Amino acid sequence: MTQAHPPRAFIVSQGEEILTGLVVDTNANFLCGRLTDLGLRVRGVITAGDRIEEIASALSSATDQGEVVVCTGGLGPTDDDLTAEAVAVAFQRRLEFHPEAMKQVEQRFAAIGRQAAASDRRQAMLPAGARLIPNALGTAPGFALEPSPGHHLWCLPGVPSEMKPMWHEFVTDDARRLFNITEPLRRLFRVMGRGESRLQDLLGDLPSRFPGIELGFRAHMPENQVKLVAEPEAAESLDAAVAELRQRLGKDLFSEEEDVGLAEVVGRMLLQRGERLALAESCTGGLIGHRCVSVAGSSQWLERGFITYSNSAKRENLGVADATLQKLGAVSEETALEMAAGARRAAGADWAIAVTGISGPSGGSADKPVGTTCFAVDGPTGTRSRTLRFGRDRNSNRSWAAAIALDMLRRQLLRAGQ
Amino acid sequence: MTQAHPPRAFIVSQGEEILTGLVVDTNANFLCGRLTDLGLRVRGVITAGDRIEEIASALSSATDQGEVVVCTGGLGPTDDDLTAEAVAVAFQRRLEFHPEAMKQVEQRFAAIGRQAAASDRRQAMLPAGARLIPNALGTAPGFALEPSPGHHLWCLPGVPSEMKPMWHEFVTDDARRLFNITEPLRRLFRVMGRGESRLQDLLGDLPSRFPGIELGFRAHMPENQVKLVAEPEAAESLDAAVAELRQRLGKDLFSEEEDVGLAEVVGRMLLQRGERLALAESCTGGLIGHRCVSVAGSSQWLERGFITYSNSAKRENLGVADATLQKLGAVSEETALEMAAGARRAAGADWAIAVTGISGPSGGSADKPVGTTCFAVDGPTGTRSRTLRFGRDRNSNRSWAAAIALDMLRRQLLRAGQ
Repeated sequence: MTQAHPPRAFIVSQGEEILTGLVVDTNANFLCGRLTDLGLRVRGVITAGDRIEEIASALSSATDQGEVVVCTGGLGPTDDDLTAEAVAVAFQRRLEFHPEAMKQVEQRFAAIGRQAAASDRRQAMLPAGARLIPNALGTAPGFALEPSPGHHLWCLPGVPSEMKPMWHEFVTDDARRLFNITEPLRRLFRVMGRGESRLQDLLGDLPSRFPGIELGFRAHMPENQVKLVAEPEAAESLDAAVAELRQRLGKDLFSEEEDVGLAEVVGRMLLQRGERLALAESCTGGLIGHRCVSVAGSSQWLERGFITYSNSAKRENLGVADATLQKLGAVSEETALEMAAGARRAAGADWAIAVTGISGPSGGSADKPVGTTCFAVDGPTGTRSRTLRFGRDRNSNRSWAAAIALDMLRRQLLRAGQ
Repeated sequence: MTQAHPPRAFIVSQGEEILTGLVVDTNANFLCGRLTDLGLRVRGVITAGDRIEEIASALSSATDQGEVVVCTGGLGPTDDDLTAEAVAVAFQRRLEFHPEAMKQVEQRFAAIGRQAAASDRRQAMLPAGARLIPNALGTAPGFALEPSPGHHLWCLPGVPSEMKPMWHEFVTDDARRLFNITEPLRRLFRVMGRGESRLQDLLGDLPSRFPGIELGFRAHMPENQVKLVAEPEAAESLDAAVAELRQRLGKDLFSEEEDVGLAEVVGRMLLQRGERLALAESCTGGLIGHRCVSVAGSSQWLERGFITYSNSAKRENLGVADATLQKLGAVSEETALEMAAGARRAAGADWAIAVTGISGPSGGSADKPVGTTCFAVDGPTGTRSRTLRFGRDRNSNRSWAAAIALDMLRRQLLRAGQ
């Protein structure tokens, strides 16, 4: 069967611990990602509690709207494991004893030196017509069912370490066999220096100019991300759109890789130049260092950092002049410049970034309100400084400041030439 | 209105980035927890994509099944921000220009020194009858609506740092006013040094010993959290259970406040003693500093920090002996002790923490595999050091190390007497 449109998929997850906020539903996130990778269009996630009628209603609603439904949780031996019964209710199937499933339950117990209890027989009661999905790591068997022609339901346990292998070892091949899937092309663009509405104004015409392209945005402030998605038939159109988008974004585009952020981009540039970085952090308090060290191999380009939260630290470790602190204050571009110069010198590094600001909630003044943050970069091509005023809470201000400091360095490295 | 049964709540979240697995839906988790705290029963979460008919269908389905619906996301200025339109479709309302909302959008732009763009006017188009929910931290206004008598819908932005304050500052009071809710009593206990199964063994008998008490656990490794919940009638029983629990947990219990973590606990102890802290971070790369500086007022107790990623930084800034680095290596308790002593001396601080370890993925050896991490605390009551071996990925290792370093300091401060 070739699909004119990719099958629509829904995820049904369940558990009171999700609905009471005790647990983040990472299973749904895993399944959304894997279904998308397979080329299916996930159109919804429905999380239900531990009640038969709620799970049945979620399953019905999902099956009404999509050809593919993946359900997790509720396959264990306890009274609140209700998936098989809910499937029976939703699709008018009897529950039948499934000898193959029982054999698997018994084998699992034997493997851990135990005997199956009476309550474990529950786990072998599956809706009529179900196919067993083996679970190599736990007792709860999964099952696959065709609730109506052209619709497919896979029920997997809720324990992630059991669910994930069952997905990889059974469901993916099953789905590929049942649907002739074409996986869509996806491109990601990570951008600094342009807000979401400006990106919309700048790029909003792309889908009409390049047929078959979908455009999406995602704010990850102060970063913004742009996505282009296209079916494989529109590959040429996508390439043309990508070229146009790159040109329009210019230096504001810093990465096209999901897992390569500002720190890693800067690290790669430094590595290529054989140069090393020092940090002088006041209000960011180590956050820039933390982001740099999150990049594997950062010891090759990060020399050291100074968290100079106090004025005495700024003087003693970075050589900031007492006169500067007295006259212009700890939050001033001059102080930032002296911090950067001092860190670069003390570390014997090629480049240094410095940040000093008022994160809040207190410490602001009429002249320098909370959120005022001064940045400096010092390097072989000279120095650069700027002042920004953030209007967010303490931790957002610092997160923004860390990103903007790394971006300032990135732009200086670009100017220096690679 | 007094509720015989607590109102049923649904969450509608949205975003292609959730459905494609790019983002974990932490907003839904936050709202599930807060609605539960308020005494509402969350019966489902529905996640829809960025299409009007899908969001409208999710909203209708949620409103059919529950009295309370909280919707997040889709309130921004771009074409894929469709919540207001979806609400209009789902509940047959016109979209109206809302001058108060526009004023707020304009004020937000003015605050950051920009002008609202044409596309930003979209954000002021709200369904007829909507009440504005002010957004102090972003341009996207939220809104509240009564889609049908006795049913209440709150629409909040998807950016967590905007959504959460709007929840706390508007929705909770609104919900309390609209529903006569009896909030269950909840107590939280934050614990270091005991795993979940040990906590279960230690505390599992509490619900049977103290009637009306529910016990729950939540892993936030290396921290674990214990929750006790009781209806208001069981207040006395709860107090007795709390006393028993505190006694059993002893010094492993470090906080009973949701938003007071290890860094703040340590900061309060330092503040009370009038003492100051210095940091010497190698593998944690600034993460401990970052956690300290996340605490408002930390400038009163955090003196400074050194991110001594390289050996030369350890020697030059902290006075670690070359012989120690040569003979015992950068990842050794002796190096950690010298780092702590050096940081304390250089900063003129009362206390110092040092961490040095192999985060991975490379850099391990048979003798010191990836995850080996050495800690030291130096203070007025002497020194303490230990070595742990983490077996997780690079970033988890560092996060664990930061928590354990702060906890070591906390225990030393406890010993020093408050």
